[in-house]
Parts: sequence; structure tokens; C-alpha cells
Amino acid sequence: MADARFGLDRKLTLDGPLALDGGGILAPVDIAYETYGTLNDDRSNAILLCHALTGDQHVASTHPITGKPGWWTRMVGPGKPIDTDRFCVICPNVIGSCMGSSGPESLAADGKPFGMRFPVITIRDMVRAQAMLLDHLGIGALYAVVGGSMGGMQVLTWAATYPTRVRAALVIASTARHSAQNIAFHEVGRQAIMADPNWRGGDYYHDGKAPDAGLAVARMAAHITYLSELGLTEKFGRRLQDRSSKTFGFDADFQVESYLRYQGLSFTGRFDANSYLYITRAMDYFDLAEDHGGHLANAFRGSTTRFCVVSFDTDWLYPTSESRNIVHALNAGGAPVSFMELSAPFGHDSFLLDVPELDRVVDGFLTAGGL
Amino acid sequence: MADARFGLDRKLTLDGPLALDGGGILAPVDIAYETYGTLNDDRSNAILLCHALTGDQHVASTHPITGKPGWWTRMVGPGKPIDTDRFCVICPNVIGSCMGSSGPESLAADGKPFGMRFPVITIRDMVRAQAMLLDHLGIGALYAVVGGSMGGMQVLTWAATYPTRVRAALVIASTARHSAQNIAFHEVGRQAIMADPNWRGGDYYHDGKAPDAGLAVARMAAHITYLSELGLTEKFGRRLQDRSSKTFGFDADFQVESYLRYQGLSFTGRFDANSYLYITRAMDYFDLAEDHGGHLANAFRGSTTRFCVVSFDTDWLYPTSESRNIVHALNAGGAPVSFMELSAPFGHDSFLLDVPELDRVVDGFLTAGGL
Repeated sequence: MADARFGLDRKLTLDGPLALDGGGILAPVDIAYETYGTLNDDRSNAILLCHALTGDQHVASTHPITGKPGWWTRMVGPGKPIDTDRFCVICPNVIGSCMGSSGPESLAADGKPFGMRFPVITIRDMVRAQAMLLDHLGIGALYAVVGGSMGGMQVLTWAATYPTRVRAALVIASTARHSAQNIAFHEVGRQAIMADPNWRGGDYYHDGKAPDAGLAVARMAAHITYLSELGLTEKFGRRLQDRSSKTFGFDADFQVESYLRYQGLSFTGRFDANSYLYITRAMDYFDLAEDHGGHLANAFRGSTTRFCVVSFDTDWLYPTSESRNIVHALNAGGAPVSFMELSAPFGHDSFLLDVPELDRVVDGFLTAGGL
Repeated sequence: MADARFGLDRKLTLDGPLALDGGGILAPVDIAYETYGTLNDDRSNAILLCHALTGDQHVASTHPITGKPGWWTRMVGPGKPIDTDRFCVICPNVIGSCMGSSGPESLAADGKPFGMRFPVITIRDMVRAQAMLLDHLGIGALYAVVGGSMGGMQVLTWAATYPTRVRAALVIASTARHSAQNIAFHEVGRQAIMADPNWRGGDYYHDGKAPDAGLAVARMAAHITYLSELGLTEKFGRRLQDRSSKTFGFDADFQVESYLRYQGLSFTGRFDANSYLYITRAMDYFDLAEDHGGHLANAFRGSTTRFCVVSFDTDWLYPTSESRNIVHALNAGGAPVSFMELSAPFGHDSFLLDVPELDRVVDGFLTAGGL
């Protein structure tokens, strides 16, 4: 008989309470998630997949709002590097987000959306909620935890918080702490949202007027940081959009303008502005060393988790130096780690795009676990 | 007897018409400017100084709005690298701006501010207006044209448009064309302004409600691109602002957030949002090669102007590769050029900050002109 806890489009409500780093509690705790593949009898083939800032649980299923394929269909599926014929992949929507897990859009005890009454959360809070989900699914130790970007922050936090539950940790295009520049770009996005008169202190769920213009600007600014200068030049250069000469006006003359406007607009259809505030805040607060006496190595001391750290040479959001920082700490902590800087032209977004070398690294690292 | 055309806080209204690259004309043409030092008898010691996007004519005089010292007091003055004991320095506010030269805030023939009825201008249009000013001042050939960032674009355009009037050209932290990434960041800023309900299609001069929130976001995003990642880390890192621990809220917990917010807010007090739209547009349209058959070298072929090109190693807005591109074109065009990449931690803003090596380069290059 099929286990209803597994499959696509699952949602779980746990009583909690989930004690948060900020001092508050969250109860109940909703967690929306999807699973792919089948958990084996000894429950040893579970892979937890952690999504990025604007990602969600629809890793390899059609997105319910956009109708587009999942965000990592190229990586997750039968015979793919994260092989659902061998592994049971679990991907939860992070708390704070807007695709079914508890977040600012969720209803508070008074029956109204939390809005800005939702507690500020941390990456570790997200991870604690995921651990509650795994408890519910009856999964103790994970074959691996895998994630890129903010997903990688969750992977590192999993390994530091629940070392005995993580047999392997794959950290892609990520960092152990948000830099001043990272925080600065997020702050621009938050200010753009909060400057939108429709934001109204986060209380905008009742009349259909969301701060879409501000959210679109936030997305545009962030999107630039996801791409490399080289990638933008190759993809767009100074080419004009559907016209043979400049219009000497303020239309989107250049392809790159048109592309960015589209990125901003389409994002507002699938994402909640308050969630964007909360999740960027969680990322800005992320500094794994700070949680371990200021020494990142302490986060991993004595760990038996196998680590693999991957960076991309054109990623200027979380550059290779940040990955090296992680690797040095793992070495200092005595944890086994392999590290690769891959060459790809797409900047930070390389982890989501067609980089065959990444496929081989993921496949190789997971296979080496010996399932 | 003192010549009223020279001195601080000058403003000139020329009948024009100024024929614009976009096909329109501008008439009359207001040009606000300042001069420092004395023009010598044979009018051979004039240096034209070109300001950057948000700069103005107040190079070394107190800013009338902010009350702060001029933006290049460290470089311009008696005994300074641009020595006003030897040179007569002329700095006009570019057209399109908001400090007295014709721009969207100026009154149109109907007695109302142009707003978005102001014609879209180019860097070359700015330069043509400056040439009209110099004609009025009775200055034919310039001892030198000097500028950083957008000022450097004007310098290059001067040398390409009026080669016989430019004896020396000093281009600092600049580029011969705006890249896709450059355009993208500007587009974010423009969209932030236009998304502000107070923008109202640019027609906001009558009731004191300007799109300040949007302009502040635009400034914040741009400001990040003026600083280096390293500089931000050294200056702010993850240090908290006037508090001992994170507040788990959306206040400016981090110093870098507080700094950025201040940059955004203070900018709105001294700059017009429409001017920001027009000048960023002019910069995005800038591609000097395009104006010369697609070959940048053609812009300088046979030039006898002495060139000096300076870049900074931490400038990621207009990186050294862009300066090299200019130097290669100058070499191919047979123009004399010296090139230096200076090391400074401040990113693009290095040209405005304390970089003693830049002082020596500027002094050396100007002195070599043999005045």
C-alpha cells in the first residue's frame, strides 16, 4: 500500500513548537514538500535536497503556478546524477517561503495572514523544521544532503547541527557567511519592496494589491548578481531588442533591459514579497562561524560526514574564495572533503544550468557513498 | 577688470540651437559652470574637467545644497595635481543634469518644467554643449580634458569629436562603451524610479512630492557597483550598527545596511530623479566605436592628442579590461598613449578618493604637456 507521506505535492502540519534562533516559537509548523523515488527498506537511501532563495519543492515536477518544469529536472530523475531509481529524494519548501510551508502568507491564530508578524527566521531554523519533517518520515540518517546557493547554506548547517544524521554533504556555489556586498544587494531589494506603497507594512494580502513593482525591482537587482559579466555580454552584449536603431527614449531598447524587466515581472506572479524579505534576512544573518565561537572549523570538528564543495569560476556572488574558506575549515576540523572549482560562463546560476562537469561531480560524489 | 565669464557659480544661456544625436534640438541651452585659476594671455592653459553621473560643477567649491566641499578638492586647487596656480580649470554641469544646466527640471517654452519632454541626450550632446561654452569663453584648444567615470567618456568623445582642440586627454576609471552589465544596473535604477508612484511620468515638480523612495533605491544599487567587494568587507564586514546583537527584525542591523540607506536618502536631497533617468540613458547609449563604423581605433586615427588612461585594479564597474580596450584602439589609431593600472582598495570610486599614486600620475601627465 502506498505511503501517503511520500510523493509529489505533499503537505504536513506539525504541532511543533519549533523554537527559533530569534527567541520566538513557531506552532503549528506547515511543511510542503515533494519526494521522488522510493525509500528502501533500511531507509538508507534518502537524499535531502535544499532549495535556493526563490526555489521551492518542485524540483522535478511541473510548477503549479508557472506551468514550467521543476528547477532541477536536469539533475534529478531516473538515471540522472541524483538518480531517483536509486535514491529517495526529499525536497521541502523552506519555512519563511510561500509555496505551502509556514511563512508570512500563512494564517496566524487570529485567522489573518501573519504578514510582518511572522517571526524572523534563520537558516538553522529552516534546517530544524526539515529535521522535524524527516522525523515524521521515519528517516534518521540521510545518505546525503545536497544544495546550491542558499541550499548550500542549509547543507552546511545540517552537517554542523546534526552531524550523525548526515553521511554526505554536497555544497554547491555557496558560502559559510554572507559578505557585506551580499548583504548590501539584499538590502537594496528589501528597500525596493518596502518603498512600494502597496507593501503597507506587509499587510497587503486582503485586496489583491501586492507590492509587485518593488518586488520586481528587487528581483532585477538580484538577478544581475546571479549572472556573470561575461555571460551577460555573450548573451546580450549591446544588442537591441526588436529594433534596428536606438529609439532615444526610455523603452527597453537593449535586449538586456527587456530580459531584466521580464525577469522582474514574471517573478511577481510566483513569489510573495514578504517571503522575499524574510528569506533574504535569514541569508544575511547566516554566519556559520559565528554560531561556533567565531571559528568555522569548530562547526565540523570530528565530523565523519563526507563533504564535497563545488564553486564556479565566474560566480561573483559567492566566489570560489568563499568555497575555499569552507574547505580550509573542513580541513582544520579534520573532516573529509573534496573541492572543485568548475569553469562555466553562467556565473552563480551555473549550478542550475547546463554544466555537464557538475553532473559528473554530483554523480561521482553520490556514487562514492557506496549505495 | 575681472571677466564676469570666469569664476565660481557661473551660468550661461546660449541661444543654440544645439542639434542632438537623437534628432531633436535644444534651444536655448543653459550651462552652469565654474572656473578655477586664471586663463593666461595666449589662452593656452585651459583644462576642461568633466564630471561623473551624479557630479556637478562644484569641483572645489562648497556645494550649495549639501554644504560639503567640492567633489575633487583633493585634486584641484593651488599646488594640487591639477594646479590652479598654473591652469584655468573649467567645469560645466552636463546638460541633462540638475545643477543649473538644461535638463528635465528646466522650464520649457510653455513655462512648465520639461519633465520627460526633455529630449534624450547622448554623451556627445553633452560634449557639444561644452564646446559651445568654450567658444563663448574664447577658448580654442584645450591644454587638457580630464575626467573620471562618465567624465572619462566625455574626454574620449572630446578627443574623437574635436581632435584639434584637445592637446591632452586624461581618462580615469572609464570605458569606451557601456557593457550589458552596466546597462543592467542602470535599468534597475530607472525601473526603481519609474515604479515610484510619485514619479507620475516625470511630472512631479509642482507639488513637492518627488519619487525620492525610488531614487534612493536606484542610488543604493548603483552605489554597490562603485565599491569593491574587498572595500566593503574592510569597511563594514558583518559588523553590527550601534547594537551588540542581531535584532531579528528588519532594522538596519548591519553597518553596511545603515550606510547604504544613508547614501540613498542623502542623494535624494541633491539630485533630480528625471536627471538620473536621462544621464544613465546617455551612458547606456555610449559606444564610441559605434559612432565610428564599429572600430574604436577610427575614433582616434591620426590624432595628435596625448592620451593617458588610468584604471584601478578593484574597479569592477569599468574594469581594467575596458581601459585596455581603449589603449589598444589608441595604439591601432597611432595616437600617443600611456596607460596605468593603479592598485587601490576602493573599487570604482578610487578616482575620487585618497590614492596618492593617482595624484602623481595626474600631476606628471599634465606637467609633461610643458606649460
